[in-house]
Amino acid sequence: MNPTNIITSPSNPRLRSLLQLQKKPKLRSEQDVFIVEGIKMYQEAPADRLVHTYLSESLYHRQPELFRTADPHAVTLLSDRAFEAVSDTKSPQGVLCLVRQYHYQLEDLLGASKSGAPLLIALENLQDPGNLGTIMRTAEGAGVTGVLLSEDCVDLYNPKVIRSTMGSVYRMPFYYADDFHRSIQECQAKGIRWYAAHLKGESSHDGQDYTGPAGFLIGNESRGLTDGTAALADTYIRIPMDGRVESLNAAVASAILMYEANRQRRSV
Amino acid sequence: MNPTNIITSPSNPRLRSLLQLQKKPKLRSEQDVFIVEGIKMYQEAPADRLVHTYLSESLYHRQPELFRTADPHAVTLLSDRAFEAVSDTKSPQGVLCLVRQYHYQLEDLLGASKSGAPLLIALENLQDPGNLGTIMRTAEGAGVTGVLLSEDCVDLYNPKVIRSTMGSVYRMPFYYADDFHRSIQECQAKGIRWYAAHLKGESSHDGQDYTGPAGFLIGNESRGLTDGTAALADTYIRIPMDGRVESLNAAVASAILMYEANRQRRSV
Repeated sequence: MNPTNIITSPSNPRLRSLLQLQKKPKLRSEQDVFIVEGIKMYQEAPADRLVHTYLSESLYHRQPELFRTADPHAVTLLSDRAFEAVSDTKSPQGVLCLVRQYHYQLEDLLGASKSGAPLLIALENLQDPGNLGTIMRTAEGAGVTGVLLSEDCVDLYNPKVIRSTMGSVYRMPFYYADDFHRSIQECQAKGIRWYAAHLKGESSHDGQDYTGPAGFLIGNESRGLTDGTAALADTYIRIPMDGRVESLNAAVASAILMYEANRQRRSV
Repeated sequence: MNPTNIITSPSNPRLRSLLQLQKKPKLRSEQDVFIVEGIKMYQEAPADRLVHTYLSESLYHRQPELFRTADPHAVTLLSDRAFEAVSDTKSPQGVLCLVRQYHYQLEDLLGASKSGAPLLIALENLQDPGNLGTIMRTAEGAGVTGVLLSEDCVDLYNPKVIRSTMGSVYRMPFYYADDFHRSIQECQAKGIRWYAAHLKGESSHDGQDYTGPAGFLIGNESRGLTDGTAALADTYIRIPMDGRVESLNAAVASAILMYEANRQRRSV
């Protein structure tokens, strides 16, 4: 593969529009793309979703074999200085891609898991990009079948979220609900039992059976679930906490719940 | 309580030295203090460790009852503009304290837990401040008796670490080992069995018994445990992962392990 284009000036208009895409959710949505960075994210990107690849000269000359099968018309070479100008990371690896956005429907979240029954996680008003990315990554590891998000959650295509998914964004179905409550109820109608981590929980999280169709409701980092959403839950649970700990980080609490379901489903 | 001092200029030399303390681990260590921010961190600070409190005028006038019992000689009022200049947060709550550092010994980590046996977590070259703080918080929740750190871990008194401990820094014993391997072996000599999350692990993490004296070895975010440290482990374990997930975030992996031990110890 020999790239047909090269950009050397950091002020090139195409680079400026890439920078805008890093920052503006609306622009990403209009252009139906998101940006991924790094070698692993490039290698795992599904070929039919890869729109364009930007490569730093030094990476291209150091590891040309990584790009041997790439379509030269869909690759632009950047001078290292130009690459640094568009990179969202402190130590750029030298590859950045435009990838086509996903458009799942609610039904796509209810696919069968390894153990047969769907397993969901629903996030209400989650704000921290690192938490959302980490939850996507852990969800894939735990065998979750889909992630339901309220519309006021942080944008999943935010570069910080994408980075912390470590590639799970390519594989984990997710759905932003215009009407979060209605989506929760639609899942219930399809047999999902919703468990809410909540102060009202009397049963510890590992005292419930998650081997059937199940989902966990997780709230905002500081305020937890809204009363309206908590009221829709089928069962309140709590993660037992020693010491003076009142709550756990949202990604940690999600991980503990998803892996308790995973543990039970492995032993069925 | 009526504060006896007030600082209105953001360029006041005392504020400049506070800013230096936010940034420089060496300075914190020389002065044997660290900085905590926010109402919860102020309220939970042990009285005998509180060196000095800095209050914004607006918080003091809005919630004077919070500071009724404070020693006026150990409180300095700051104009809101001066407070913003020293705060490490985007939306300052208006209270910041100097707290005396902790000096635990290795033995302090081996205290009895609720369930009787000590439960440790050992971190090698952990670099992300959010991960370390989150691990401290989850460790307290899970009933861990102490956190062992290799000397090349991020500084626990880094303001980002402190913030994400959510107060657990006041209660969770921790120890930076000059000689990490020797400390691991000293714990073994006291009966601790070390479990390393490792690719070589043949047993899943929930197939082991953690009700006796136990500890988990957790490695660096990208490179995992060094071979030398992994070689000291008594047992290799792995957290089962579905999909294409190769590893989990360090704080998430720690949480899953610590809460598996917690689950087992609750049912003994």
